[in-house]
Amino acid sequence: MPQDIYDKIMMLAKRRGYIYPSFEIYGGVAGFYDYGPLGSQLKNNVENLWRSFFLLKDNCIEINTPTITLHDVLKASGHVEEFTDLTVDCEKCKRSYKVEDIINDNISVEQALRKDKIKCPTCGKKLKDAHPVNLMFSTTIGAGEGRAAFLRPETAQGIFTNFHLLYRYNRERLPFGVIQIGKGYRNEISPRQGMLRLREFSMAEAEVFFDPEDKKHHNFDSVKDKELFLFDNEKEFKISLEEAVDKKIINNQALAYYMYLTQDFLLSAGVDSKKFRFRKHGSGELAHYATECWDTELYSMRFGWIECVGIADRSAYDLNAHIDSTNVDMYAMKKFDEPKVVKVKKIVPKMNVMGPFFKDKAGKIKDLLEKIDVKDTKKISVEVDGEIIEIPENCYEIVETKEKMMGEKFVPHVIEPSFGIDRVVYFLLEHNYAEIKKKGEEYRILKLTPQMAPIKVGVFPLIGDKKLVDIAKDIDKNLRNAGVETYYDDGGTIGRRYARMDEIGTPFCITVDHDTLEDNTVTVRDRDTTQQERMKLGQLVSYFQKRLEF
Amino acid sequence: MPQDIYDKIMMLAKRRGYIYPSFEIYGGVAGFYDYGPLGSQLKNNVENLWRSFFLLKDNCIEINTPTITLHDVLKASGHVEEFTDLTVDCEKCKRSYKVEDIINDNISVEQALRKDKIKCPTCGKKLKDAHPVNLMFSTTIGAGEGRAAFLRPETAQGIFTNFHLLYRYNRERLPFGVIQIGKGYRNEISPRQGMLRLREFSMAEAEVFFDPEDKKHHNFDSVKDKELFLFDNEKEFKISLEEAVDKKIINNQALAYYMYLTQDFLLSAGVDSKKFRFRKHGSGELAHYATECWDTELYSMRFGWIECVGIADRSAYDLNAHIDSTNVDMYAMKKFDEPKVVKVKKIVPKMNVMGPFFKDKAGKIKDLLEKIDVKDTKKISVEVDGEIIEIPENCYEIVETKEKMMGEKFVPHVIEPSFGIDRVVYFLLEHNYAEIKKKGEEYRILKLTPQMAPIKVGVFPLIGDKKLVDIAKDIDKNLRNAGVETYYDDGGTIGRRYARMDEIGTPFCITVDHDTLEDNTVTVRDRDTTQQERMKLGQLVSYFQKRLEF
Repeated sequence: MPQDIYDKIMMLAKRRGYIYPSFEIYGGVAGFYDYGPLGSQLKNNVENLWRSFFLLKDNCIEINTPTITLHDVLKASGHVEEFTDLTVDCEKCKRSYKVEDIINDNISVEQALRKDKIKCPTCGKKLKDAHPVNLMFSTTIGAGEGRAAFLRPETAQGIFTNFHLLYRYNRERLPFGVIQIGKGYRNEISPRQGMLRLREFSMAEAEVFFDPEDKKHHNFDSVKDKELFLFDNEKEFKISLEEAVDKKIINNQALAYYMYLTQDFLLSAGVDSKKFRFRKHGSGELAHYATECWDTELYSMRFGWIECVGIADRSAYDLNAHIDSTNVDMYAMKKFDEPKVVKVKKIVPKMNVMGPFFKDKAGKIKDLLEKIDVKDTKKISVEVDGEIIEIPENCYEIVETKEKMMGEKFVPHVIEPSFGIDRVVYFLLEHNYAEIKKKGEEYRILKLTPQMAPIKVGVFPLIGDKKLVDIAKDIDKNLRNAGVETYYDDGGTIGRRYARMDEIGTPFCITVDHDTLEDNTVTVRDRDTTQQERMKLGQLVSYFQKRLEF
Repeated sequence: MPQDIYDKIMMLAKRRGYIYPSFEIYGGVAGFYDYGPLGSQLKNNVENLWRSFFLLKDNCIEINTPTITLHDVLKASGHVEEFTDLTVDCEKCKRSYKVEDIINDNISVEQALRKDKIKCPTCGKKLKDAHPVNLMFSTTIGAGEGRAAFLRPETAQGIFTNFHLLYRYNRERLPFGVIQIGKGYRNEISPRQGMLRLREFSMAEAEVFFDPEDKKHHNFDSVKDKELFLFDNEKEFKISLEEAVDKKIINNQALAYYMYLTQDFLLSAGVDSKKFRFRKHGSGELAHYATECWDTELYSMRFGWIECVGIADRSAYDLNAHIDSTNVDMYAMKKFDEPKVVKVKKIVPKMNVMGPFFKDKAGKIKDLLEKIDVKDTKKISVEVDGEIIEIPENCYEIVETKEKMMGEKFVPHVIEPSFGIDRVVYFLLEHNYAEIKKKGEEYRILKLTPQMAPIKVGVFPLIGDKKLVDIAKDIDKNLRNAGVETYYDDGGTIGRRYARMDEIGTPFCITVDHDTLEDNTVTVRDRDTTQQERMKLGQLVSYFQKRLEF
């Protein structure tokens, strides 16, 4: 079988220290990969660039919450019920499959199974009925019975459950954005897309909180004429942010702005703009929490268009869910320009009736009744210790009063750009991989941008002569002390050393030769132009700091 | 109860956005904390400083492996058997306790339980027998039966299981160091020390591989006269690295060097040198994998001396364990200066005897016999498909031959500095916290170093005048674009704004006032000296880049 680009990249990645299959010496498990020395550095560079877009450019704040998450949080967020894949198991060999992977989408699951149109892809025997399987890894906190928990399916819930504290940190002003970078988990039934379908992955998410009636962004005007690359499930087209919002192709400024920030980030990182587009989710595709979602899709020669970022309008879904589950005040406040006098209906409990009727529960019920916001007065009920109690009409009066309101409470909406960092890393490798022939042999170049490249400068003495070696080691040390990642190499011909650096994406190489001893100059070679120029030793640090945009 | 320093710090941390208890709106769980906006930034600064010590100064390489780890890996490493706490459960209320927490160390567990000297601390009833409980969080990969896995108790195993690939990456030369920064997990029975006893924590570990006969470090000479702060379990004393190694107080140069690197890192980060020491583990305290270990202990006013870093000589323990479990070649090679001719004993199987005797297993047994390194010839046995088969003497001959050896294989030893990042973060807060009285009121200052401080510069317009506001916002933006974290604040008196910045550890504040409109200067205030100086607008960026050691 001829190698396709994915095979070539994964082989290069393993041979040169970008990516290793996890637990390989123990037979490996699908859905887990290790980042080697170069891969870790590339991933760090991607995350740092992402931070510079979201923290420094967009003024977000960053938080960091545990990967282990209490069952109650994910029950409230809907993940316990909704974060599932429809799965079938084989009667005989007990293997499990994701229905989507093995059943052609022209036929429903029920049909396929009923008519025995589909058998176990491994052993050929009958499959059992399809059932949803939750995709969260579960675990238990503490000894004995402990407390049920999951590994988080997204970093977002750690942000939502702290909303009230973060809102206070931001001096109770909207909009503001909160980012989190860290691990997410998805216990895939049987992942089959290598690096692109991981069970443990790195995410970078931003949750930006807005007044639902004001989904604008203060930087929108400065980018409104820029073009987004959209795909409406029929054709691809370019359109300015302003036009896309005016024509309601994108629902609001905020969503359009974060789409542009995403595009700008990915193209700056080195994604190929011809293999980049936004695709809008159809209503059937939307996650349980989203009202609108655009995927950033990147094109892979093996896998086709792959989602790397989802930019969703989660509306007030999550904050409402946590308010409903905990009764904690997670509202924002909109101050009126001047106080308003409004009519409010209040429940006044009659304790002389409730006391004998509800006995020891009467006090609790009274407190709950007084907090109820009366709109529909047909039936009044409260929840006490998990029990729903309907309150007979003779237990209370409804009184209308006037109150002076300084503002009104509301639940903010959330715009969420959610990045799969591992996929971005993979696509930077695929989109920047080039093969040429050199002296009849295959020659590989990874054209990573200088900012993304794990190693910035290769440093070589032309030959093993101690004088040259000492100078080269000095240069190496000076660059490292200035924060420039280097790779010192004195093995093999200069050609082979250039080839090693080209293959791992190092943008520059320095060679110390005999002329260096005479005139204090070295050769600096550019990976992409292969041009070489002589440069004074004393200029090297500042030259690279400039070229690397420090 | 009067607040002690821990309470004060945790209150400040929550109020100002350093640290929040996790899942608080769902009642919380001991052993989990969230980093708020300031805490995340401080933690990032600590990790980046750590990276600069280990990646740039010490030339280590970095890798990144999953937190979910296959059972087989942790079985081999000894964690399944050894990573336990002796635990007792209550017969009545079923609560579990770590024996160490509830039994006085003057009396053995058996004695305490037998004599009913100790009762359940919660309900007062009888406790059951003590038993070891494993401290790893367990989970399952995949649907159905799946594969058993744990959340990693340390990042180190991800490095060891890749040793052969990393050794190749390093061009098969020793020594070299590999770092990993990421989450570690320990399912504590009932953690009671707040931030200092987490169930999910951030670690930074370095595994440095050495030739066991050459545990030297190439930078040792440059630091050999520096002093380490040691505690020998009786007294504290200072001693130079060289003397400590010469007197065998510390076993080898490599260990002493990494102790110094650790000390240098922690003191640079802002740990109080008077609250810092290294304490050597007694033989009874050593982890199952260690032959020597020094803890870096930091002093807390509430908790006393607390381990923050362990610097262990893990010898060849882990690599041997993985070689034994997988038979993968994870050796290093020491090349001889010139080839040596050595006598070797080899087993020559007699297939005419073995064939009829072992039938279809004979071929496999032959292959295994030929690989055996013959030292003790009394009994020869091999393992085939999990069965140990003893080989009768008439099945083989032992032949002595001469072979030309180019070098010899050995299993490298490992020196491991392992940092608990959350503890470092907590101690930076405690050691840098100061209270003074100002106008009769309590005034709090966090004296974080400029490099560690989450916010570097507060930017204030003196009053809400649009002209001043515009200039202040411009300064804020320019500093952020230059990578300097700022906090723009136009609320309240200047005194209150300084106080807010002092309390969160911001080293500098800029105030724009009416003179700014005249002469383009602003006031720059230094947190620690409270000195104010006028400075030109155009100088600000370069001034702060210098003060912040960019």
